[in-house]
Amino acid sequence: MTRPTLSGTPDSVPTVELDELVDGGDLELIDRWLGQADVVEIADELSRLPQEQRAVPFRLLSKERALEVFELLDPSLQQELLEGLRDTNIRQLFEDLDPDDRARLTEEMPATVARRLLAGLSPNERRLTSTLLGYPEDSAGRLMSPEVASLRENMTAAEALERLRRIGRSSETIYALPVTDDHRRLVGALGLRDLVLADPGERVEDLMDRDVYSARVDTDQEEAARLIREADLLALPIVDTEDRLVGIVTVDDAMEVLEEEETEDLARAGGAEPLGRPYLTTSVLQIARSRVVWLLFLIVAATLTVNVLQLFEPTLNQVVSLALFIPLIIGTGGNTGAQAATTVTRALAVGEVRFDDLGVVILREARVGLLLGAMLGLLALGPAWLFAGRQIGITVAVTLLAVCTLAAFVGSALPLIARRVGVDPAVMSAPFITTLVDASGLIVYFLVARAVLGL
Amino acid sequence: MTRPTLSGTPDSVPTVELDELVDGGDLELIDRWLGQADVVEIADELSRLPQEQRAVPFRLLSKERALEVFELLDPSLQQELLEGLRDTNIRQLFEDLDPDDRARLTEEMPATVARRLLAGLSPNERRLTSTLLGYPEDSAGRLMSPEVASLRENMTAAEALERLRRIGRSSETIYALPVTDDHRRLVGALGLRDLVLADPGERVEDLMDRDVYSARVDTDQEEAARLIREADLLALPIVDTEDRLVGIVTVDDAMEVLEEEETEDLARAGGAEPLGRPYLTTSVLQIARSRVVWLLFLIVAATLTVNVLQLFEPTLNQVVSLALFIPLIIGTGGNTGAQAATTVTRALAVGEVRFDDLGVVILREARVGLLLGAMLGLLALGPAWLFAGRQIGITVAVTLLAVCTLAAFVGSALPLIARRVGVDPAVMSAPFITTLVDASGLIVYFLVARAVLGL
Repeated sequence: MTRPTLSGTPDSVPTVELDELVDGGDLELIDRWLGQADVVEIADELSRLPQEQRAVPFRLLSKERALEVFELLDPSLQQELLEGLRDTNIRQLFEDLDPDDRARLTEEMPATVARRLLAGLSPNERRLTSTLLGYPEDSAGRLMSPEVASLRENMTAAEALERLRRIGRSSETIYALPVTDDHRRLVGALGLRDLVLADPGERVEDLMDRDVYSARVDTDQEEAARLIREADLLALPIVDTEDRLVGIVTVDDAMEVLEEEETEDLARAGGAEPLGRPYLTTSVLQIARSRVVWLLFLIVAATLTVNVLQLFEPTLNQVVSLALFIPLIIGTGGNTGAQAATTVTRALAVGEVRFDDLGVVILREARVGLLLGAMLGLLALGPAWLFAGRQIGITVAVTLLAVCTLAAFVGSALPLIARRVGVDPAVMSAPFITTLVDASGLIVYFLVARAVLGL
Repeated sequence: MTRPTLSGTPDSVPTVELDELVDGGDLELIDRWLGQADVVEIADELSRLPQEQRAVPFRLLSKERALEVFELLDPSLQQELLEGLRDTNIRQLFEDLDPDDRARLTEEMPATVARRLLAGLSPNERRLTSTLLGYPEDSAGRLMSPEVASLRENMTAAEALERLRRIGRSSETIYALPVTDDHRRLVGALGLRDLVLADPGERVEDLMDRDVYSARVDTDQEEAARLIREADLLALPIVDTEDRLVGIVTVDDAMEVLEEEETEDLARAGGAEPLGRPYLTTSVLQIARSRVVWLLFLIVAATLTVNVLQLFEPTLNQVVSLALFIPLIIGTGGNTGAQAATTVTRALAVGEVRFDDLGVVILREARVGLLLGAMLGLLALGPAWLFAGRQIGITVAVTLLAVCTLAAFVGSALPLIARRVGVDPAVMSAPFITTLVDASGLIVYFLVARAVLGL
């Protein structure tokens, strides 16, 4: 077995890539490549191949490695891969998955396929998966593993270790051990480390931490994942409405949820919906679809600017050189607004800011905008003056000051309001704010111009 | 002790907040609040208070909880908090921190303070911290904990557990156990779970996984963190250039690095530098500073648009109504470019795309742009025709088609090129692309207009 070490300059490693080998079609070379690679590399390379080419290398993997690679793939790819496999292989793979991974995959499949596969599971695995599928989408209940190794308060450390040796293999984690009372209610938690380091005769109730974090089955996945990150947990016990332990969410699942959330936030920051699958396996049509709704919305909003300009067409006819600065002014306003929106959206996402802070935040941002606008206005005054005369120079400078203040104000307020009304604040993205600020910026520009030029 | 459970509707919990209590100044009420809250809540609330108000609640915490809360705070806040404490308390806190946390904090401090504090450490702790500070910033060496519990190949499971009972308390983790040979070279790894579940007489070399992931001390932190996430690891062994084990990076530190990276990417996607500290504790001046360089750069780039428009001023003078569609056209081009740039930047960040894919990617994106441009052009043709006549309608439609294609092309190529030349691709953000596409979009617009209008 090779041992892959991340070195300081990983880009310089010269290797043949899997896609070239698959193109070549030499099974022996592919097999050798697979033997040298680790499962993360294999999953990465499969995520770059077109759908019809993925099945060949996958079938060459040993049963155990195939499962490991399969678990690392995006659910959309898992589903497509299943289509290329023989029925018995599919059944086996599906049976061997963790119940939470199986539930995620099931969401991706056509309902008929999902039903057939679920019916083929052993009764116990089927029960576990159905339970998970009963919880709402994006809830902690969907994310958790129902196979949780828990302890009882009155056990000794030796008894607890004995119990783990018996049931530990089938649980997703035994590093964080929830402790329950006689009614399966969560009363504490114990790390395997403390259990291992403890005196064998010590009792669990004396070892455990009573101040245990937990989440309810109906908690939002993202929130549960953030708690795991903030409190540095390895796993988070999940309880039902009566505080009974029903499952556990592990840190690796939490990281995956947070990565997805962040991909979503970043996509929206760029004015698009997330693709929901690896980029290179997404078709041109699917990419266009992820963007078109936003673009349509934005172009309709942009017709506002046409209306505003038409309103001021007489002014524009009199002083055509006013048109020269239109892109500069709306661009700067858009950028200032996008900066404010991005900062506030992120602060909201990581919990540094709440809706209650609305007043404080927009006041701060308006002051930031005023400061930046004053600076940029002063800076632009000279060149614009030289370029288009004193009056237009003053118009441009005053407009920049006003537009920056306005944009920072709007850009900071909208994400907070979005959160309040239950919309993802990331939707209040750079393109969105830019388009909104454009029209109002133009109004300011022409009003200032009329005043300064005495039209 | 209370047990905080995340419920489905966490926003509805009605509580008094710490800032109100601190404003009131009633120490007893603050103390009661602290008693009810968990350490994550306390750290969150401290991150919202102004600097001068943080010391009071912090001093009311018990020594043990104070350390836990301190560890959860941002390094910038840790440093400010130290300034408000008595010298003996500072020494104690500093000594009790993990070496990697201490190294991060040290970077934030003025060099003289850092030297004085480091000098006050016990020799062992000082040695550990100095080692970490010897590695380059943002390297895995800085992030790792040098206190790593490792096993030897020839131990039995019972001996290994015995060793852990002896040294396990001082290690940052014992859940992932690197195995070394006689020369401290990394030869495998073993999870505590497998050790606990093993027969006491089994030997470590038979239990361990020889196919172990590791990273070098000089590997970039983000890369090491991504490997932990992708391979679902609890910890990653860190080796020196001769493959000798020198430390371990744990999953909680990896999550923190990834959160910081993502905050940075999001800030840059909005055309600003990250603040590097919690939003509400950042002053207006600091926020303005994080944005001003970008704005200056963008406004200088935007003067390009002024030049382009001046070049076409004769055309504009003849047909002033061409000006009406300037914001719509550059806005749509900017949005299409921003979408492409955001998608490609994220695909790069999570490793779905590499520089080698440049050709494939820009071809795909150009096709996406063409498709979207054709649709938007067709859509705009009617209204623009009615609004400003047939010729301008055609001009707008053709320009939209060309500009969308161009923008998607530029937006997808620039992040890949940035990565190639060693610049953070996130710098090729929405505002940046928008500003670049603006000028070229205007050129296209006026050239098309001249051709269609026969000027």
